[in-house]
Amino acid sequence: MGTPIPMVELWRGGMLESTHTGHAVIWGDGGIVESWGDPGAIIFPRSSCKMIQALPLIETGAADKVALTERHLALSCASHQGSALHVEMTGRWLADLGKSEADLRCGSHEPYDKAERDRLIAAGEGACQLHNNCSGKHCGFVTVTRHLGADAEYLELDHPLQKAIRAATEEVTEETVSGYGIDGCSAPNFAVSLTGLARAMASFAKAGDSGSVRERAMHRLTRAMAAHPELVAGEGRACTELMRAMDHRVTIKTGAEAVFVAIVPERRLGLALKITDGNSRASEAAVTALLARLGVLEASHPAALKRLPAPQKNCRGKITGELRLSEGFL
Amino acid sequence: MGTPIPMVELWRGGMLESTHTGHAVIWGDGGIVESWGDPGAIIFPRSSCKMIQALPLIETGAADKVALTERHLALSCASHQGSALHVEMTGRWLADLGKSEADLRCGSHEPYDKAERDRLIAAGEGACQLHNNCSGKHCGFVTVTRHLGADAEYLELDHPLQKAIRAATEEVTEETVSGYGIDGCSAPNFAVSLTGLARAMASFAKAGDSGSVRERAMHRLTRAMAAHPELVAGEGRACTELMRAMDHRVTIKTGAEAVFVAIVPERRLGLALKITDGNSRASEAAVTALLARLGVLEASHPAALKRLPAPQKNCRGKITGELRLSEGFL
Repeated sequence: MGTPIPMVELWRGGMLESTHTGHAVIWGDGGIVESWGDPGAIIFPRSSCKMIQALPLIETGAADKVALTERHLALSCASHQGSALHVEMTGRWLADLGKSEADLRCGSHEPYDKAERDRLIAAGEGACQLHNNCSGKHCGFVTVTRHLGADAEYLELDHPLQKAIRAATEEVTEETVSGYGIDGCSAPNFAVSLTGLARAMASFAKAGDSGSVRERAMHRLTRAMAAHPELVAGEGRACTELMRAMDHRVTIKTGAEAVFVAIVPERRLGLALKITDGNSRASEAAVTALLARLGVLEASHPAALKRLPAPQKNCRGKITGELRLSEGFL
Repeated sequence: MGTPIPMVELWRGGMLESTHTGHAVIWGDGGIVESWGDPGAIIFPRSSCKMIQALPLIETGAADKVALTERHLALSCASHQGSALHVEMTGRWLADLGKSEADLRCGSHEPYDKAERDRLIAAGEGACQLHNNCSGKHCGFVTVTRHLGADAEYLELDHPLQKAIRAATEEVTEETVSGYGIDGCSAPNFAVSLTGLARAMASFAKAGDSGSVRERAMHRLTRAMAAHPELVAGEGRACTELMRAMDHRVTIKTGAEAVFVAIVPERRLGLALKITDGNSRASEAAVTALLARLGVLEASHPAALKRLPAPQKNCRGKITGELRLSEGFL
């Protein structure tokens, strides 16, 4: 893998404290528009590719068969924080299918949402699978599995759903996947090049509401995510706040280990970036800077300023440091 | 600053996912024994220098005047997790001084200890300053301040305590500090070279229970930390588990933004390392590898294996990845 470039730094007391390097690619109509570091770097997209993993939900006809709304589609691409809103919606979705939380295969973890977390603890309740940040994606998986009449173990690599996701991944990235790993939610996650991921995002950007089944599916998912940022992540989170700050015109998605993608329909561009060390404070800062550079995000918007310079405040409210772009990056 | 070297990697599905670079220095009797990356890198030691910040507690006579025990000394060097044990001890310490939680200047944050966190939430109580991971250090600061009859605002740069800490830092690192930043607990944190920090740790390693006031103070703090690992961090934490795994013969301390130091009396060695990106999963893995290389930690001890290869398990207990040492480092 080629050398990444310094992208984001943490400064404290006028001195450099920590540095984050990374790779980024912007793909346009004619190929790479701009790149930093190694555009050929092979990465795990992790949750940044949830809109690719949701393609079979629409393309098999499963979504329309059970009349999923745009909100369901947004939730199927979410890494949500398990707030009451998300738990309520995923629970109802499963019930409407005649399924239950027990049909999910994502596992349970404490919700990131503080209000819901505190409610559970005060009530002496444990988290359930609906709280898992990937439960919306898994509701989509259950929907497809039920539609196909396929085996309940929908995370197996040879399950028709995972085969369809692999095929869709290779088609939209226009490359053969380099292998796979197991994601935090136990789903297979296919490794692709950063360029492939950016190219896929550009395909989503260009897709309109007429055209092939694939194009219409891409368009619906892109629009669903941008229209419902609160379902894609949650209050206070980068995806939610930045999509709102861009007036719902751009679709963005984070992935674990500091991946970030953006779909910019008005510019017919796709963007993908990976911070080498996996720290999301840096991927959030870098995507903020790149979106501002593309002219689709106001760098002075509070949601942008929160990520870059991202003042580091301690528990007494004192500013102790701040994130900065590395010299030479943008 | 010179180029760091790859030290620790996250692997998933047989592929490299994330990389952490860093610098490290081992200082012995005659100078640098071994180094990686740039030994001259200027860093903020953050909490890794708490044993330096605690020197005035002993050297002013404050500790003995109020008959602090070895346990108090360990706690004064701690980044604890705010468990009931730590809260109880710091609260009693202040009461014994005729002081209270309100005299601390560290601020409040939710304790890292899950049992105490859940207890607070279930009881509808907020965290207090005793829960702050630095409250032991601040109890030490209050003790010195009271002993000196100095101003209650003990975190000001021109306060006699902070002046004494700065002087002690320059004496044990044998260099002039490069400046300062404000730490998470609002205390000034003086920037030093990694070599200076390793040299300071070697001085702690060599200090015996006879000798100068400084040497005896260093010896007492080193022994106090190693003797009471549960006070220095807490159950499940790296400092606590690894010091126990080394039979209390070695003193280690983590600092925010991925600093780690070790004091190895039996080898008269000091060690300091900094992971460039600030991720503590990597500093814990790197210090584990370095301590094993020095022959003071069994690489096969469960506390070591937990940090390297540090299997990444998801919420269903599936291993999804693991940390590995980078090729060329050790």
